Amino acid sequence: MGAGILSDLATEILIPVCAVIGIAFSLIQWVLVSRVQLSPDKHSSANDGKNGFAESLIEEEEGLNDHNVVQKCAEIQNAISEGATSFLFTEYQYVGIFMGAFAVLIFLFLGSVEGFSTSTQPCTFDSSKRCKPALATALFSTISFLLGAVTSVVSGFLGMKIATYANARTTLEARKGVGKAFIIAFRSGAVMGFLLAANGLLVLYIAINLFKLYYGDDWEGLFEAITGYGLGGSSMALFGRVGGGIYTKAADVGADLVGKVERNIPEDDPRNPAVIADNVGDNVGDIAGMGSDLFGSSMGILVCLITTLFATDFFEIKGVKDIEPTLKRQLIISTVLMTAGIAIISWISLPSSFTIFNFGVQKEVKNWQLFLCVGVGLWAGLIIGFVTEYYTSNAYSPVQDVADSCRTGAATNVIFGLALGYKSVIIPIFAIAISIFVSFSFAAMYGIAVAALGMLSTIATGLAIDAYGPISDNAGGIAEMAGMSHRIRERTDALDAAGNTTAAIGKGFAIGSAALVSLALFGAFVSRAGISTVDVLTPKVFIGLLVGAMLPYWFSAMTMKSVGSAALKMVEEVRRQFNTIPGLMEGTAKPDYANCVKISTDASIKEMIPPGALVMLTPLIVGILFGVETLSGVLAGSLVSGVQIAISASNTGGAWIMPRSILRLNFIELREAQLSEAGASEHARTLGPKGSDPHKAAVIGDTIGDPLKDTSGPSLNILIKLMAVESLVFAPFFATHGGLLFKIF
Amino acid sequence: MGAGILSDLATEILIPVCAVIGIAFSLIQWVLVSRVQLSPDKHSSANDGKNGFAESLIEEEEGLNDHNVVQKCAEIQNAISEGATSFLFTEYQYVGIFMGAFAVLIFLFLGSVEGFSTSTQPCTFDSSKRCKPALATALFSTISFLLGAVTSVVSGFLGMKIATYANARTTLEARKGVGKAFIIAFRSGAVMGFLLAANGLLVLYIAINLFKLYYGDDWEGLFEAITGYGLGGSSMALFGRVGGGIYTKAADVGADLVGKVERNIPEDDPRNPAVIADNVGDNVGDIAGMGSDLFGSSMGILVCLITTLFATDFFEIKGVKDIEPTLKRQLIISTVLMTAGIAIISWISLPSSFTIFNFGVQKEVKNWQLFLCVGVGLWAGLIIGFVTEYYTSNAYSPVQDVADSCRTGAATNVIFGLALGYKSVIIPIFAIAISIFVSFSFAAMYGIAVAALGMLSTIATGLAIDAYGPISDNAGGIAEMAGMSHRIRERTDALDAAGNTTAAIGKGFAIGSAALVSLALFGAFVSRAGISTVDVLTPKVFIGLLVGAMLPYWFSAMTMKSVGSAALKMVEEVRRQFNTIPGLMEGTAKPDYANCVKISTDASIKEMIPPGALVMLTPLIVGILFGVETLSGVLAGSLVSGVQIAISASNTGGAWIMPRSILRLNFIELREAQLSEAGASEHARTLGPKGSDPHKAAVIGDTIGDPLKDTSGPSLNILIKLMAVESLVFAPFFATHGGLLFKIF
Repeated sequence: MGAGILSDLATEILIPVCAVIGIAFSLIQWVLVSRVQLSPDKHSSANDGKNGFAESLIEEEEGLNDHNVVQKCAEIQNAISEGATSFLFTEYQYVGIFMGAFAVLIFLFLGSVEGFSTSTQPCTFDSSKRCKPALATALFSTISFLLGAVTSVVSGFLGMKIATYANARTTLEARKGVGKAFIIAFRSGAVMGFLLAANGLLVLYIAINLFKLYYGDDWEGLFEAITGYGLGGSSMALFGRVGGGIYTKAADVGADLVGKVERNIPEDDPRNPAVIADNVGDNVGDIAGMGSDLFGSSMGILVCLITTLFATDFFEIKGVKDIEPTLKRQLIISTVLMTAGIAIISWISLPSSFTIFNFGVQKEVKNWQLFLCVGVGLWAGLIIGFVTEYYTSNAYSPVQDVADSCRTGAATNVIFGLALGYKSVIIPIFAIAISIFVSFSFAAMYGIAVAALGMLSTIATGLAIDAYGPISDNAGGIAEMAGMSHRIRERTDALDAAGNTTAAIGKGFAIGSAALVSLALFGAFVSRAGISTVDVLTPKVFIGLLVGAMLPYWFSAMTMKSVGSAALKMVEEVRRQFNTIPGLMEGTAKPDYANCVKISTDASIKEMIPPGALVMLTPLIVGILFGVETLSGVLAGSLVSGVQIAISASNTGGAWIMPRSILRLNFIELREAQLSEAGASEHARTLGPKGSDPHKAAVIGDTIGDPLKDTSGPSLNILIKLMAVESLVFAPFFATHGGLLFKIF
Repeated sequence: MGAGILSDLATEILIPVCAVIGIAFSLIQWVLVSRVQLSPDKHSSANDGKNGFAESLIEEEEGLNDHNVVQKCAEIQNAISEGATSFLFTEYQYVGIFMGAFAVLIFLFLGSVEGFSTSTQPCTFDSSKRCKPALATALFSTISFLLGAVTSVVSGFLGMKIATYANARTTLEARKGVGKAFIIAFRSGAVMGFLLAANGLLVLYIAINLFKLYYGDDWEGLFEAITGYGLGGSSMALFGRVGGGIYTKAADVGADLVGKVERNIPEDDPRNPAVIADNVGDNVGDIAGMGSDLFGSSMGILVCLITTLFATDFFEIKGVKDIEPTLKRQLIISTVLMTAGIAIISWISLPSSFTIFNFGVQKEVKNWQLFLCVGVGLWAGLIIGFVTEYYTSNAYSPVQDVADSCRTGAATNVIFGLALGYKSVIIPIFAIAISIFVSFSFAAMYGIAVAALGMLSTIATGLAIDAYGPISDNAGGIAEMAGMSHRIRERTDALDAAGNTTAAIGKGFAIGSAALVSLALFGAFVSRAGISTVDVLTPKVFIGLLVGAMLPYWFSAMTMKSVGSAALKMVEEVRRQFNTIPGLMEGTAKPDYANCVKISTDASIKEMIPPGALVMLTPLIVGILFGVETLSGVLAGSLVSGVQIAISASNTGGAWIMPRSILRLNFIELREAQLSEAGASEHARTLGPKGSDPHKAAVIGDTIGDPLKDTSGPSLNILIKLMAVESLVFAPFFATHGGLLFKIF
């Protein structure tokens, strides 16, 4: 979409330059991360440079010279990395077959639009011009579909590699203090955010330019062909999110239910057979799944780059309490800089007014109007981010109320948590509604696309913040497994707690932008399908709306049940190992980690197919049998319903982690403040110690939240986007051959 | 709507005749119920007649001659009845003020449409005719609004009185066996179902005929004025459902959390201070709330009447297992008879074809087409009923899976339960979508109204089945409090378990018909507001759709949080009493029941206002500020989103009771079958005894389900209907003065 805003020349130069800068920046960050040595004999080299010992507070350092620990961390990191790699390869094999079959479908369906004719055709929107044949567009759509899928695979894989590279290093840095560990975790998040955003952008840019060699000035065909890229990326992302989401939550829930609840051993205890699977899951679910779901932004990378400097270099994290404000400040700085940047760009490089087409009607748009479209999206994103933070951070009353309700048990915890999630939907929906109204009023569907671009423009920062969470989570796991001291574990826990809130913020952004992107794609679909109104009062559309609103429920039912069933299998295996391996509880025998990894892998591969197929086949079935009007209804229904479930699931899940974090932070605070009143909050002190009934209730809520926030919730925004982009890709086919049922009757 | 289907003469005769027959039938049932004597000295008279001892199995009889028990039951019944009466009076006082204010609003807003002019105006749909002034319609709308509210209040109050009259009698009959108790409970349900349905119908009939004296052939004005009746009824029903729902669940959750979980005493134990409040709650929440939500049906009453005979007189309930099939058979018989009845009626009394107006366009409708419209609604209702039964009965795998998941704790129980609720949405949505499509294709919005009538035509049976649940629940409570033997408690528990499933079925019907009714009202609104299309692709409509889809979440957040907060207060009070009243746990001192009743009352009165106001003010605010297009979007959005949440919440909650019922039934089965393999199911046996970890997990699920199935879920269908009927009432005002914001900018 960026190509439309900026003048041609600016686009030609800015996009590749931004992408290359992004990649270069991420490589520099990587080099900085890699300075933390994982081979014990060389660790003295960490004394050099900015991040060395010299600057760190000496009293915080702990166990720096324990070479055994470094060795152990390296081993654990290897095990996690191997497990993740092997899962991703298995997953890609299965999904590869599905995607191959779907690619054939795309070619056949789109090719059939003009009966596989190889001659040029009059263009749809300008019939005086000749456009390339549908067969060519079918071929290029298929190619760009596969290209999108491969880019998504590469992104996911790279993300996983970066995260597993960073986790043990974060653990080791935690020996020097929270601040140092934070910088490593955040830098690694930045590597990932920038590398993936830049990569996605670069591939898209190259693809467009290569396709242009064939299409020339046939923009219509080029646009059609390139939407395949989005479909490929989104489809792969869906499988990545669902498969990875089931994997990680099956392992997490299974490990927790036996370890924390039944055996009363801490999280990530090396005696728990599911512990490696759990840590692998963080990387394949949260990281690879998210990494796969990428759409580029243009100058956003530059702004986010500057922002990142603020986190890692300009400010120094001194204590636990600084982490969340720092991550939050990132978002504000991104947004403010971005607003200024866009204002300058639209003043310099945009013509003062230009013409867009809105369902065949011409409309004049001023450059300041376009600026407002981007701006409203950008700021709506910030509002969504803040609201999410308000509802998922332990600094505010909603989470504190939920924590309080743990005193009367798990039931009230769940009731309050669900209510919190429902309530957290209100303001984001108003923010999205306002940005839709403003941007549409100025520039119709084009304005909505631009607003989506605005919301996504801070994506690199968002990704960095989002990736930071699982890395810290893993770092904590490695610290526990390597038998490092409680102080270090507490530091990584503090990082993790802040990461949970920021992950929720990242998800909020993703959902908001998904709503706008889908609406823009929906508009494009309607336009391509040749329908001018989507009237709710016609039964064709209304039943589509009703069924569409049901789809997110169907999808969530599948994914949640999958997590539940897989977790039950994991529980049985973990119990079996505890019962049959002598000396396991005493720590004298090693559990069979591989078997748990295998259970998670098998379950997620098997269980990701039905929800994936539901999403990918629904637009095809509806379009072919019922036609484009009903499909429009389905898209609108799934959009307005899915957004709500996605936000509420993500925030409910995000909030449920916090009562436990309150407890955890409590320990640290109490110790650090030496029991002074100032340090510990009223809530934290009254909630009781670990192992108490409120704590058990909190664990139950946390466990229920897992599939909500990491499997169903984040998959739903892909569902929305994917159905819209798929409908768009197949629009010419549906318009020609669709609606069979109504044609028969 | 019935007036449109039947020819004038048939309507004039059939409606009052049906209503009178319904009332007469319910009075006969009442007499039969009243034969169970609550004054001990006269109890020998129960020896007479069909329901006397003579026919009952002697070995089942227990404690028949214990006069103390009868005395105690009568006392407890009194306490419950008094608590319920006092709550309802308090509730009606507060709501009365709100309704009075709203009545003034209606008069002012509708009167202002033509500037309070008293002269006749050209009709909207036929401008050659003169219609009554808007001021008169404003006045009559206000009157019918108040009339609807009063009818609803009377219905709720009567329902409560009947239920509290029946509960102790059911307990006493349980001494003679499950079958006898079932007949009393079901008969009482029938009294309520028929009395309320007939009452609603009769009042509406009288109102129409009185209004006709003024309006003459001005059908337009008459129709407008009479919609106020629906608004009044729905508004009152909303407050009844929400207020009663908060009351009952605060008491229930509060009583369970301390009693069952902390103190390990059985449900309804007289030592629990919240036990009276809990039983009062069943009557004001489930019964009065439901009773308030009534819309009449025409010949349905006759059919349901015949059906009821099957349950109470033609078949005899022999054992526990017969209960659920009997209630289910009721629905099938109703549906089959109804189909035949409608076929005959439409053949005899309908002209072979007639003309309807669809947004100004004339359309010819054949009588068989109208028959199909009713039929498709009727059978869609049956399908919804069956699907609900499948997902909430312990006879099928979904609930058994949820029960199984209790073995790994509360977290998996909740995950599976939520997934079950989401999944249970799929088929009902398809059933509703198909009936919308079919009925709309035949007779446009009129067809949808007729389909809704078809689905509602079995309402008296539905109400009877629905009311049966809380009566049995109360009967069990009275048995426990009166210190009756465990065998009797087990019999009432068995009744109760079957009642839970049938209550879920009743809710399924209510939701399905609410969807159809709302859609028909929505169509009427659009037509009256003078808009011909509701195009999703216009930003005005789309933002309405998005925000509308959010409203059920906002509403649920409010109601669930209210239940949670009120329950917390109740927990504190119950704990306080256990801690401060010496001898309470030992049973030597009496708890302060009144204080718990007061807490529930205060909390529900305070907490019902915000959600009620949200629903009642939203259409006004949207209509005035944004106009009819956005309001159309809001209605469509809340409809398609609310239906899903309502079904899933109701079924999730319904399913979560069952794992406990499986345990309870287990005890009875095991004893009755003398530990034979045939009697007890595999699931029941492996789930472990009461007090075990799976049992605790089941209690947690049950508690979470309470606000879902009894507060949020059933209120949502009122929300959908209420917003639609309110928009319809205010349509002329919005069309004239609405959309201020867009007029300003």
